[in-house]
Amino acid sequence: MKSPILPADDDARELARTLLAGARSAALAVITPTGEPMATRVAFGLSPEGTPLTLVSDLAPHSAAMRANPAVSLLLGEPGERGDPLIHPRLTLQARAAFLSRNLPRHEEVAAHYLRSHPKARLYIGFADFSFVLFAVHRAHLNGGFGRAWTLCPSDLGLPA
Amino acid sequence: MKSPILPADDDARELARTLLAGARSAALAVITPTGEPMATRVAFGLSPEGTPLTLVSDLAPHSAAMRANPAVSLLLGEPGERGDPLIHPRLTLQARAAFLSRNLPRHEEVAAHYLRSHPKARLYIGFADFSFVLFAVHRAHLNGGFGRAWTLCPSDLGLPA
Repeated sequence: MKSPILPADDDARELARTLLAGARSAALAVITPTGEPMATRVAFGLSPEGTPLTLVSDLAPHSAAMRANPAVSLLLGEPGERGDPLIHPRLTLQARAAFLSRNLPRHEEVAAHYLRSHPKARLYIGFADFSFVLFAVHRAHLNGGFGRAWTLCPSDLGLPA
Repeated sequence: MKSPILPADDDARELARTLLAGARSAALAVITPTGEPMATRVAFGLSPEGTPLTLVSDLAPHSAAMRANPAVSLLLGEPGERGDPLIHPRLTLQARAAFLSRNLPRHEEVAAHYLRSHPKARLYIGFADFSFVLFAVHRAHLNGGFGRAWTLCPSDLGLPA
């Protein structure tokens, strides 16, 4: 069968960067300690340097999973209300998760930046069980709708390799 | 730390069944042949008997992953446009994927039923690389918003155990 995957081009890079900049939530895929995949909804944002991140509670099962196995995937881009949900563009990131200690000065910098794009997080960002998790992306898959799929590398997204 | 997980109750069962019946797409988490989690958007529907299913192309990487390792998770329930995306209810299914051969009479029954809820799928349902995948659910996690989380079993969702 012919592979439908296209080489990266400027249209793909622009669409992927738009999805990355615009997402406020994501579907997170982790592998649980029993080896099963698990998909949950998480908040999504970018660090001051543009690194993808989330803010999660240690009470949620995805947090325990990421602490045990940092391999994750994130799906960005929401389907619209109308038409076939698969015509809407979406971006899959494959990444490694790294928790940011609340005790570091860096936590305050990231928190201040995050609250500008996620003001409602002020309600829980101060809770002791909430931490930022930074995602080091090593590969991405962009689907712009049927027949339009690209594999992208971190530099295509403006991220460090 | 106190577990925030509540025992199943009728409100949780009703909310979960509403999400299951209303979803037209899902985030699918699979484990790739290299052992990494991968999150993608897929179509979502129910069989004539109410079993969760999707319709996928063999050209998509999630199809190869599910054929090699049938352990999957699905996230249902879209965040709304407004407010914190995490206040919107969502349902995580943990399941095993089983492909339905296009050569079986059962394929035609499932296809006819699917097209009633997904009429736009008529454009590609006949393509030789598209198959239905049925999901045997063994556990579910319902999140109704902050502080409201339940673990559910298949019978809570009206599904076979």
